[in-house]
Amino acid sequence: MEHFRSIGLIGRLGSGRVVDTLRRLKRFLLERGHTVILEDAVADLLPGHQLQVCSRQNMGDLCDLVIVVGGDGSLLGAARALCQSNVPVLGVNRGGLGFLTDIAPDELEQGVGDVLEGKYMAESRFLLDAIVCRNNEELGSISALNEVVLHPGKSARMIEFELFVDGQFVYSLKSDGMIVATPTGSTAYSLSAGGPIMHPKLDAMVLVPMYPHTLSSRPMVVEGNSEIRITISRNNEIYPQVSCDGQEHIACAPGDIVIIRKKAQKLRLIHPLNHNFYAICRSKLGWSSRLTK
Amino acid sequence: MEHFRSIGLIGRLGSGRVVDTLRRLKRFLLERGHTVILEDAVADLLPGHQLQVCSRQNMGDLCDLVIVVGGDGSLLGAARALCQSNVPVLGVNRGGLGFLTDIAPDELEQGVGDVLEGKYMAESRFLLDAIVCRNNEELGSISALNEVVLHPGKSARMIEFELFVDGQFVYSLKSDGMIVATPTGSTAYSLSAGGPIMHPKLDAMVLVPMYPHTLSSRPMVVEGNSEIRITISRNNEIYPQVSCDGQEHIACAPGDIVIIRKKAQKLRLIHPLNHNFYAICRSKLGWSSRLTK
Amino acid sequence: MEHFRSIGLIGRLGSGRVVDTLRRLKRFLLERGHTVILEDAVADLLPGHQLQVCSRQNMGDLCDLVIVVGGDGSLLGAARALCQSNVPVLGVNRGGLGFLTDIAPDELEQGVGDVLEGKYMAESRFLLDAIVCRNNEELGSISALNEVVLHPGKSARMIEFELFVDGQFVYSLKSDGMIVATPTGSTAYSLSAGGPIMHPKLDAMVLVPMYPHTLSSRPMVVEGNSEIRITISRNNEIYPQVSCDGQEHIACAPGDIVIIRKKAQKLRLIHPLNHNFYAICRSKLGWSSRLTK
Amino acid sequence: MEHFRSIGLIGRLGSGRVVDTLRRLKRFLLERGHTVILEDAVADLLPGHQLQVCSRQNMGDLCDLVIVVGGDGSLLGAARALCQSNVPVLGVNRGGLGFLTDIAPDELEQGVGDVLEGKYMAESRFLLDAIVCRNNEELGSISALNEVVLHPGKSARMIEFELFVDGQFVYSLKSDGMIVATPTGSTAYSLSAGGPIMHPKLDAMVLVPMYPHTLSSRPMVVEGNSEIRITISRNNEIYPQVSCDGQEHIACAPGDIVIIRKKAQKLRLIHPLNHNFYAICRSKLGWSSRLTK
Repeated sequence: MEHFRSIGLIGRLGSGRVVDTLRRLKRFLLERGHTVILEDAVADLLPGHQLQVCSRQNMGDLCDLVIVVGGDGSLLGAARALCQSNVPVLGVNRGGLGFLTDIAPDELEQGVGDVLEGKYMAESRFLLDAIVCRNNEELGSISALNEVVLHPGKSARMIEFELFVDGQFVYSLKSDGMIVATPTGSTAYSLSAGGPIMHPKLDAMVLVPMYPHTLSSRPMVVEGNSEIRITISRNNEIYPQVSCDGQEHIACAPGDIVIIRKKAQKLRLIHPLNHNFYAICRSKLGWSSRLTK
Repeated sequence: MEHFRSIGLIGRLGSGRVVDTLRRLKRFLLERGHTVILEDAVADLLPGHQLQVCSRQNMGDLCDLVIVVGGDGSLLGAARALCQSNVPVLGVNRGGLGFLTDIAPDELEQGVGDVLEGKYMAESRFLLDAIVCRNNEELGSISALNEVVLHPGKSARMIEFELFVDGQFVYSLKSDGMIVATPTGSTAYSLSAGGPIMHPKLDAMVLVPMYPHTLSSRPMVVEGNSEIRITISRNNEIYPQVSCDGQEHIACAPGDIVIIRKKAQKLRLIHPLNHNFYAICRSKLGWSSRLTK
Repeated sequence: MEHFRSIGLIGRLGSGRVVDTLRRLKRFLLERGHTVILEDAVADLLPGHQLQVCSRQNMGDLCDLVIVVGGDGSLLGAARALCQSNVPVLGVNRGGLGFLTDIAPDELEQGVGDVLEGKYMAESRFLLDAIVCRNNEELGSISALNEVVLHPGKSARMIEFELFVDGQFVYSLKSDGMIVATPTGSTAYSLSAGGPIMHPKLDAMVLVPMYPHTLSSRPMVVEGNSEIRITISRNNEIYPQVSCDGQEHIACAPGDIVIIRKKAQKLRLIHPLNHNFYAICRSKLGWSSRLTK
Repeated sequence: MEHFRSIGLIGRLGSGRVVDTLRRLKRFLLERGHTVILEDAVADLLPGHQLQVCSRQNMGDLCDLVIVVGGDGSLLGAARALCQSNVPVLGVNRGGLGFLTDIAPDELEQGVGDVLEGKYMAESRFLLDAIVCRNNEELGSISALNEVVLHPGKSARMIEFELFVDGQFVYSLKSDGMIVATPTGSTAYSLSAGGPIMHPKLDAMVLVPMYPHTLSSRPMVVEGNSEIRITISRNNEIYPQVSCDGQEHIACAPGDIVIIRKKAQKLRLIHPLNHNFYAICRSKLGWSSRLTK
């Protein structure tokens, strides 16, 4: 069992409820004798805190555990920053149950306390790297825990590209874009776009064409180690974008190549022992839990 | 039978094949003794033409028939400009069969000749008006033959709105946007987004939510005379857009109201006598035409 | 305003709750001085009732209003039997809200009382006739308020057929079958099969191919007066069935022709004044009713 | 490299073209000095053949390679019979390209010759076992290469069940049934029912609910080693069936439990060296292969 001595706190900004939860959490952790380290943005929310402050990027080196208070979106951002260091991450949601943030505010002390006493399960979730290349040179790269989306930048425009998986040509497509999602992301944007739900343990990615100009394109699931290559056609008159988790973006140009593959570093996600993927699906997606009508 | 004496020509710009077809068409019409009037942009493509030139907006008053050479997209633009005047419109495609442009270049003289001799069928296609209101004042309005799309302006963003039909509240939704399509548009963008095909004669609109953040929203078909009202939530941090046929746009703001309803003026669309909606579907959508495998 | 003096009662069999509601309803109506007539099957559920009894088919002639107690399924059966006589029909559900049965048991006396005092709205809902022809002779015909389904009879078999609308060939298809639904049926089986929701006032039918062996077939909405003709291929080795509302069936053979068109007689459906189609959708389909998350 | 000395022949019955191909194949193999063994049903198609004959089940023990002439359906049946013995299987289609039978008749000698000379690739494809249990006893079990389908037996009926994956409750559902497909089957019935395409190398199954009575059920992809358990509700009034590849069936009853898991034995599928999964998708599904329109 790991000993979580130094604990970092990250929080969603702009929400009074999140600040309340951070305050309770700080008090609870200090009373238990833990060292508490605040992300710099969070430090501003807790005036007079007298605690160590550091950037999100450095938390991985300084902390034994990072707790993120907010929604699934907050955890996505933290995950991309923290996966380099392999520090475990625990999510406390600010209201409704989340797929990633599964300790509710009203069970805060009990839930976090259990984790600190070793009553937790740890999961490894993989991320994707999206690399944009122009004229055989790497223009930039960003990471995603949920999904990489290639899209035209502006709504209601079309993008034309060729898709290759592991070097094999798959098809050329005109569409509103393409989503490449991890199992973690399969219950997010990809699901809205018609993709299947993938169990978190599955080592796979799903490719979901967005509003394709053909009736024959369907979501496609490939192995997690596949290399996805998308060649943006030189015919395009638009300047598409690659977005990661809807939060970070790279601007592309006609002729650019986007390479998407599993990131070497993984997120270590901590869950309470009663965590159950299907229970969250039932709660979040409205699946029926009883055989009556 | 109508006498088509004065005939206007409109063409898609930037295509050598379209210019060739326009030239053949001009010669054919002049040889038959018709008056030929060129849209000003087309006139530039045909140097030395010695014909009357006018704006697209004025063609309706000067012409007995307007022929559009290009793809379905060219006809959409012409339709919005010409529907005010009720002038009949005939489409000549520049290659593959279109849903709206159904005379092929290789049957140009035969096909157009038949129409000029009265061998045609005329269809009335309705358009939509999209009106954006702010603080109870009309900000602007645009028309669409295919579809009105409310979208976030930038890709991969979400928009939050409330939907009303004929004054009745339907639902509130977070999504990538909403498509409101005519039967004419039901085989275009709406189809990519999961909407049903609607027969051109149907007096109905389809409302297709785009990647909704819920699994329960589905395409909905309402009467053609319905008034659609979309209230853009003040919660939105984005500045959405209303697009018509993917060609014209109005910028909106949080709190704006978008009203969509059938336009008073209709497009008079001319088809050759062998026109058949289902045959075009079979050709364009790949429907099977034979009972073998 | 109509005077509903003689009131017929129909109920779903096999449910204690339905019997309770029928008893309350009988007492309530008799106290108000109405003549109560029982469907013969219902009469057996209410021993010692001392009321007139008749068959479901004769109720239309004897009653000014028929009240159906049960779920939407009970009302479907009653509608098919009663539409011949044009008698108005009111539905009392036995639990959850229904699309057709919209008086709840706990508001029974208030809801039915209001209707009897003229506080109601009447809607006309059209039905479909499905006629099976063999060797140019009519083999039989049945009616549907929700949908006609052509299917292979046994699950997990395929059926091969050609589709014509208003005499025009549409396509040939291999599939698990074909659904032809009314607007009333568009929120039932057709919705599960991917069809759009159609507003009850829309004069249209939707054709939904069931698990087609092609990716290009999509739900198609045509005018309510269209004639649908399905030619069951002689290649089939199965004996398909035509089902109406999942309750009545005709057995077909390879080579048979199925004709589906709007029935001349309509259902007169009575609603309380607070009836609202979209409110029922929100309740039954889980549409969001507020702009918060 | 394996030496394919004894070669078994299996063929689809009832097709003259298959018999022609079998005859050519027999001659070709004998001329090359191979021992040819006929499945007993095939032997009847080739009178005067003077070759060894055996049952399909025994071919695995007697042959070094089995060649199946027919469509994908023929190979499914052969695969279920032959996977026990691990004998490699090669498919020759009788016309159009198949996903499993990828040597075309017009390249028969070249294609088969190459394979016999060691120019081939071998793939391992997993099958599913479906086991039906009643009162804690195993009632029977069948295998599937494409998919196991639980369905009501008769079309247009509903089945009610509870789903468990690896012992965890997922949801209860009312639907037309449930498809559990392998990657091999993901391009067959599962695709018609809205399931994703899964690359053949993926170690996963997809669960596709059939026309569920809820809008929230979606295809779900789980690991290939998962145990799927479906408890057929005792509320059902129907006697459902479990079908494998649409070819074999077990009759179930309310209360039965269906367990679906990966079969221990795998199919060894032989392909010519130019075999390419995505090329077959482009050909069979109509994916676009060029960036022009």
